[in-house]
Formats: sequence, structure tokens, C-alpha cells
Amino acid sequence: MAPLVECVPNFSEGRRIEVITAIADAIRGAGARVIDVQADAAHNRMVVTFVAEPDLAVDAGMAGAAVASERIDLREHRGEHPRMGATDVVPFVPFADLPMEVCVGLAKAFGERLWKELHVPVYFYGEAATRPERRELERVRRGGFEELVERIGDPDRGPDVGAARVHPSAGATAVGARIPLIAYNVNLKTTDLRVAKDIARMIRASSGGLPNVKALGFALADRGLVQVSMNLTDYRVTNIWKVFTVIREAARERGVELEASEIVGTIPLAAAVGVIKDAVIEPAFRMDQVLEKKVWAAE
Amino acid sequence: MAPLVECVPNFSEGRRIEVITAIADAIRGAGARVIDVQADAAHNRMVVTFVAEPDLAVDAGMAGAAVASERIDLREHRGEHPRMGATDVVPFVPFADLPMEVCVGLAKAFGERLWKELHVPVYFYGEAATRPERRELERVRRGGFEELVERIGDPDRGPDVGAARVHPSAGATAVGARIPLIAYNVNLKTTDLRVAKDIARMIRASSGGLPNVKALGFALADRGLVQVSMNLTDYRVTNIWKVFTVIREAARERGVELEASEIVGTIPLAAAVGVIKDAVIEPAFRMDQVLEKKVWAAE
Repeated sequence: MAPLVECVPNFSEGRRIEVITAIADAIRGAGARVIDVQADAAHNRMVVTFVAEPDLAVDAGMAGAAVASERIDLREHRGEHPRMGATDVVPFVPFADLPMEVCVGLAKAFGERLWKELHVPVYFYGEAATRPERRELERVRRGGFEELVERIGDPDRGPDVGAARVHPSAGATAVGARIPLIAYNVNLKTTDLRVAKDIARMIRASSGGLPNVKALGFALADRGLVQVSMNLTDYRVTNIWKVFTVIREAARERGVELEASEIVGTIPLAAAVGVIKDAVIEPAFRMDQVLEKKVWAAE
Repeated sequence: MAPLVECVPNFSEGRRIEVITAIADAIRGAGARVIDVQADAAHNRMVVTFVAEPDLAVDAGMAGAAVASERIDLREHRGEHPRMGATDVVPFVPFADLPMEVCVGLAKAFGERLWKELHVPVYFYGEAATRPERRELERVRRGGFEELVERIGDPDRGPDVGAARVHPSAGATAVGARIPLIAYNVNLKTTDLRVAKDIARMIRASSGGLPNVKALGFALADRGLVQVSMNLTDYRVTNIWKVFTVIREAARERGVELEASEIVGTIPLAAAVGVIKDAVIEPAFRMDQVLEKKVWAAE
């Protein structure tokens, strides 16, 4: 089977269905397999997930970016989500056994083309970052389009590729390489939002909790529950079973039971195998022991 | 991606390496993908696991059976494992989303050819059984070759395909369709074999324990542990997490801790997904949420 890369470009359009469709169609038309399109009107943002052979992934991403540059004007854009570009963020993600270095190479190639063909300045983030302080997307994108227009000339705000001025309508783009994120939520049988917020604070990495965990507490008012909503940014360090058991214990201490948990979107097989290793104490379990992996990966 | 079937033929040869190799080569030569070959000298038996497109799987199984019929003489065969044929058992197993009915059809076609081309009488078992009492392989094979030679003429012992006489040297063959078996062991931190035997008795289906579980207690003398060794014959009914937690609780009541567990060989992705559903209370988790499955299965 040919090696594949996953790419999850985020575009600043979540309302005009004809633009959303045109972007997804352009990516598909370049020969990529679009496996998911999520558009959110409140955020005014869309997220496309596609897979393709590595060289083709750059073409497919460029096809989407070209439509976004033509159809989206950041000067008119309103939405709740932080953003700095029409094509806002483009991460290349290893699929199956693809090495991370391949993804870094694709990010670099994509960034060069974005500047050369669409005149959009580029910031490299994640594993593709050229400066340590740009590894975190949040730091690259802080202040959004409006702040970047003012500050792109500052010594520490200049792009990695392109001139130090934002594209007038398409802004700038963060291009990176990273492992797959896991979106994971645990629901608690209480209506007391403080319990979810307390536990979220306790486990999130930024307040000294579990490494590579982002967490927020929400109310699920219509269901009479509260939720600890998480992003696991490196499942190799902190995986689902670990946060599940820590939350279960923290809830118990507060006299609260778990209702259920939710894996949102997809997880890589390696993370699924990791849950089994952890949950039933089977440290030697390998991906190749999943029959489908053994058969399909060998094709 | 073309639909595939898994086939796990068992042959009564575990000692003569040239015969073991000839059988595996014949299956491979017919175009199947051999993913595992296990030979056991004490049992004098080999188990081949291969996958192939459905029609080709019958050809591949026949190629192996033809070599076995030519090279193995049951009248000379000695070994600890129950057996009644040179080609002893041939189960067809759904791979990924292949319907069970396809496997039943393949078993029937294979059985007809085994009689027609190699003159070996056939008993259908598992989902391919034509009589309820033949669903269980153990019942079909009880008494082995030696008893079958005497009793094949009995009204309840006649084959489903072929004349009521065993092939002089190749015996008879059980051909079936079944879901994948899971071989799963849990190791306990004690040297007291009675603990493993007690727990095995408690959980095995035949003594009123968990449905679709076969279990035995063993000593792992060199490691200072004992083991509950299991076959889960229908992971859709009783999966790994269930037996793990029941054994953990039973061990706790006896003051014994678990050391680790072991999944032997492969498990289907559906069973891996099932462990996650059960362990982190994620009842809605789907196979399609495993990214590799989503991508590969769509090819």
C-alpha cells in the first residue's frame, strides 16, 4: 500500500455553503480523498480532513488554498474562533507508519508554494517550527489577523516564508506538522459545573496536571450533566485510559459518578492499541496483532 | 478494497518440516496471502492463517488439502491433539465487513470439492453446520480418526458430504464458518496453581460462568506465576474487558494481584474497538473512528 499523509486544513469560512463546497471540491478534484468536512457557523470556520499520497497532498492543499484566497476576505470576516488567514492553519499529520520528517518536508514545500503562488506569508509551527517559540499554534496566531496587520513588521513577528506584510484579504497562514490530536470528553453525573471546571483545571497541562492535555469544563444543560472536554495533543505521552482513570478518581473524591465518555472524530490505531495496553495491562500488545492492520498495511 | 476472507486450516503435521513447508507453499502458490504458520511437534499439528479474496480462498485451501492428502497418513499419525483428518479442520472466517453468509457459502463449496476431488468425507460445523448438534467442533471430532473409522456408518455419525467411509489415509475433515476466536490469558502473581484452576472453573461457560469462554488454569513455573488461559469463542458476547475485570475481582477476593494479560495472535479490529467501548464507557465508539480503518476499508 502506498504511504499516505493526512492533512487537516482549516479555512475561515463556516457560513457560505457555496464557498465551503468549492473548497472541498477543489481538494477532491486534485485527487485527495476527503474523509471529513466540518463547518461551524458560529466560529465561521471549516475543517477539512483529507488523505493523499504525500506529493499529491501538497497539490490538494494548494487547490483548497487557492479557492480560499479568492473567495474569503479576512477584512470582512467575523467569527468566534481565533484566525489570521483565509487558509488559516494547515497541519500535515503522519498516517499509519509515515515518518514525521516526511510531514515536515511537506509543510515546508507547501509553505514555499503558498507564498510563491498565492503571495500569502507563512509561519511554520509544530514539528515544522523553525523557532522554538513557534511550536505552539496559539502563540503563532495570537491577536489574529487584526493584530498581525499591525505587528508583522516587529522583529519577532516576521513570517518564516515571504515578505513582512500580510496578504490584504487572505492574511497569513500557519503551516505545520504534528501527530494526530485526540478530542476526548468525559461526562459526569452532576449539574454542578464547578466539578467539571475543577477537574479540568486539575488535569490540564498548563496548570501542572497531565502533560499534553488541554481541558475545559462545560455544562451539558439539556442532559443534566457536566463535561470535561479535552484535547490530547500527544497520545504517546498521555492517552485516553490515563485521563479517564484520573478523572474517574477525581470525580469519586467529589462524590460524583461518570456517565460515559466520548471520543470525538477519529483516533489513530496506535492510540486505540494504547488504550488496550493500558486498560488490561497488556504492555506487549502490538498494532500488528489487529488483524485488519496486519492485512491492509501489507498490501 | 476487494472483500477478503480469512481461512485457518489445521493440518495433522507438526514435525516434518518439508511437509509443513509444502502445505504452506501450496496455499501461497494458489495466490493467498499466508499471514501465519504455526507448527507444534507435541501436537503434531500445524495451523495456517491466510487471507484471500473469497473465490480464491477455496482454491488455496484445496491446494493445501491436496498436499496434506498426499503426504499425511492418519494411520501412522501420533500426537496429543484430537484429530480426524490429514486436513483436519477448515474454518472460513469473515474479514472486516464480510458477511458470515459468504463464509458459510465458501465452506459448502470447499466441502463439496474436498469430497469430489480428494474423496475425503466432510462434516460441516459452526455456522455452516447442517444439524444443531454439529455446531460444536468438539462434538464432530469426538473420538478422533480411530473412532470415526469404526462408527462412520452409525446413523448419527454419517458425513454431510460424501460416502459413509473415511478416506483410508486422509480420514475426514470438519469444514466450517465462524467468527474469529480470541486467545487471551491473564497472569496472576502467585505460585498457587489452585487459584488459576479455581478462577478458570468459575468463568468458563461449561461450568456456568461467562458465555462463550473456555478457560484452563496453568502454572508458569519459570516465571513464578499462574495463568488463566482462555479462548473467547464469541467476542461479541464476552470480550476481553469483561473477562479481565471478572478475573481481577476474583483474584482480589483471594488476595492475589494480576501481573499482566496477554492477547495471543491477532484479534479483529471490532474486538479492539469493543475493549475501548467497555473500558472507558464509550458505548458509541465505532470502528470507522479508527482512522486507518476509515481510510483502508474505503480503498
